[in-house]
Amino acid sequence: GFSDDAKPSGGGRVFAPYAIFKGKAALTVAPVLPVFAKIDSGNVCIERRGTVMMTFMPAIGQRKYDWAKKQMFALSATEVGSVISMGSKDSSEFFHDPSMKSSNSGQVTKSLSIKPYEDSKSQDGKGGYYFSLSVQNKILKTNHYLVVPVTIAEFAVMKTAFSFALPYIMGWDRLIVQGENAPQSFST
Amino acid sequence: GFSDDAKPSGGGRVFAPYAIFKGKAALTVAPVLPVFAKIDSGNVCIERRGTVMMTFMPAIGQRKYDWAKKQMFALSATEVGSVISMGSKDSSEFFHDPSMKSSNSGQVTKSLSIKPYEDSKSQDGKGGYYFSLSVQNKILKTNHYLVVPVTIAEFAVMKTAFSFALPYIMGWDRLIVQGENAPQSFST
Amino acid sequence: GFSDDAKPSGGGRVFAPYAIFKGKAALTVAPVLPVFAKIDSGNVCIERRGTVMMTFMPAIGQRKYDWAKKQMFALSATEVGSVISMGSKDSSEFFHDPSMKSSNSGQVTKSLSIKPYEDSKSQDGKGGYYFSLSVQNKILKTNHYLVVPVTIAEFAVMKTAFSFALPYIMGWDRLIVQGENAPQSFST
Amino acid sequence: GFSDDAKPSGGGRVFAPYAIFKGKAALTVAPVLPVFAKIDSGNVCIERRGTVMMTFMPAIGQRKYDWAKKQMFALSATEVGSVISMGSKDSSEFFHDPSMKSSNSGQVTKSLSIKPYEDSKSQDGKGGYYFSLSVQNKILKTNHYLVVPVTIAEFAVMKTAFSFALPYIMGWDRLIVQGENAPQSFST
Repeated sequence: GFSDDAKPSGGGRVFAPYAIFKGKAALTVAPVLPVFAKIDSGNVCIERRGTVMMTFMPAIGQRKYDWAKKQMFALSATEVGSVISMGSKDSSEFFHDPSMKSSNSGQVTKSLSIKPYEDSKSQDGKGGYYFSLSVQNKILKTNHYLVVPVTIAEFAVMKTAFSFALPYIMGWDRLIVQGENAPQSFST
Repeated sequence: GFSDDAKPSGGGRVFAPYAIFKGKAALTVAPVLPVFAKIDSGNVCIERRGTVMMTFMPAIGQRKYDWAKKQMFALSATEVGSVISMGSKDSSEFFHDPSMKSSNSGQVTKSLSIKPYEDSKSQDGKGGYYFSLSVQNKILKTNHYLVVPVTIAEFAVMKTAFSFALPYIMGWDRLIVQGENAPQSFST
Repeated sequence: GFSDDAKPSGGGRVFAPYAIFKGKAALTVAPVLPVFAKIDSGNVCIERRGTVMMTFMPAIGQRKYDWAKKQMFALSATEVGSVISMGSKDSSEFFHDPSMKSSNSGQVTKSLSIKPYEDSKSQDGKGGYYFSLSVQNKILKTNHYLVVPVTIAEFAVMKTAFSFALPYIMGWDRLIVQGENAPQSFST
Repeated sequence: GFSDDAKPSGGGRVFAPYAIFKGKAALTVAPVLPVFAKIDSGNVCIERRGTVMMTFMPAIGQRKYDWAKKQMFALSATEVGSVISMGSKDSSEFFHDPSMKSSNSGQVTKSLSIKPYEDSKSQDGKGGYYFSLSVQNKILKTNHYLVVPVTIAEFAVMKTAFSFALPYIMGWDRLIVQGENAPQSFST
């Protein structure tokens, strides 16, 4: 896993996000692996699902982006499936409440929208998708809105990379690896 | 493999099913790896094919499901191929007799049906597929029927995860791994 | 690799072909990995390309097939690409001369044909593809012809398994593995 | 990585390009892995992006090609995404300046064009794509132009191999491997 609690001591992490830098904002995407827990039986259970983390940053100059003002949205496996299955005319919209089911429910709401665009004014003249993240904080009374136009080629990279990552964020690679390393599964 | 006989002693298994929880029932899917056997020559043959196990559980309360009343259906490689190749309007139906070719043949019959739905009353307003499992036991005179509506996004996760898992349940990953670990295949 | 010369001593091979058993003949498919050679510089070059081996066997009784009368056809990477890219109405035909460029050229000719069928008399009522292998030996004056009807689901398994196997028969997995095991590629 | 500086000492590299040999020129494609750098924190960052290297060589006789006159074009992840997402009627064109952002900017310009062809005179009677590389050097006053016709089957091999390679040239496999080798990500 990537989280601070999972790897508290210095180093060893790998950073290789796919980054899309545009005029008003940048978007990076990277998988976050699930966290597994050993249970009493000695078996291993998935404890926290993996995600594909989308990080938006506003531009503060030419090809300079403000990391401190980043806004994040973690796509679940099913939301990744939704993106992968989008046709060229399809839109998607996802809503998250980071404090869902807690007493802070509803204080922060996030929505990620993916909408196709297609006109001669678009960046590559061929169309693509607007990725828009809206984050509303009712306590701080802030409302952040960031938009990154994603070309068809960049969206194809995302779809291929998301399809690659999906079994890993689901933890299915562990099912497979256990089989390969399990000589006891041979009967003689 | 996952089966009890393959890993009899305590622990070491990994559990990471993809779970779909709906109002009347839940559905989990997970790959089951093939079992290989060493044969006299020292070579290794596939002994039991892998499957993708589909487990249905009836709801017994809000987001509570009765594991004891689960019903299972093991998709073969070819049935997985059938699901992967389904178009948006296609249906599939599979029939299993767990005791086929034994004296108990016909006592228990199972059928899994996958049918598209598309109407404004559907869970996400965009359609999806009904996964229905029917299990008839002529000895016990029972007839279980469980239905889980699967959204297009959830179905996309299944297709991607099934495509990932297919070569592993076929055992083709072993063919590949043997090559990589085989320095004797280098000629000098 | 799989070949006799590559692994002469007893055992260690894995057999996991995907098998399609039909009334008049059976067809099994399995990847054959490339053979690499170390060259003077210490580098490694691909010496013999990998293939996907298709093996046809005639039926000699109910679900009994004559292994001794098997006929084989080794699909190259490009031919695998041809199969993967086939649409539902497309046909393919491949011609091989196992002795091409030798003095025996033309003595044995093989052709593999893949043609769609679609009628109510087909095995599953939904259509599929006829895989037909013709092997003509001008010296022995023999002419073998074997046909296996392949359902759409079975063809989907082939396409997915072929797509999985393609990078391995091309040897691209070696390029990738070398990177992961190469700490010297880190600059500090 | 593949580059000379990354692996200076003798040997250990693997060569397995996918090669397309045609009458006037040949084209080989192979992935080039990213280079990672350890940073102060002990973490690892991607330092140089991976690419898919396309190498064109002019023919100098029947199935003989002049390696010394090769011209190369390194596809970025996003350009690979562009190729993967091409429909059967689509064209693509990419422009590179190897000295971009340096004082030599504009001295050498490269463009790679991929255009569909479809006529009865084409090599396989079924159409395919022209891959054309143009390299203009204003200092040397040279202008190289190389064209290789790529069949639909060969293009399918490229798409499948590019899809396989894309997560690796992005470095996403490292994110995944780190998870699998990280026992500290287990909470107990």
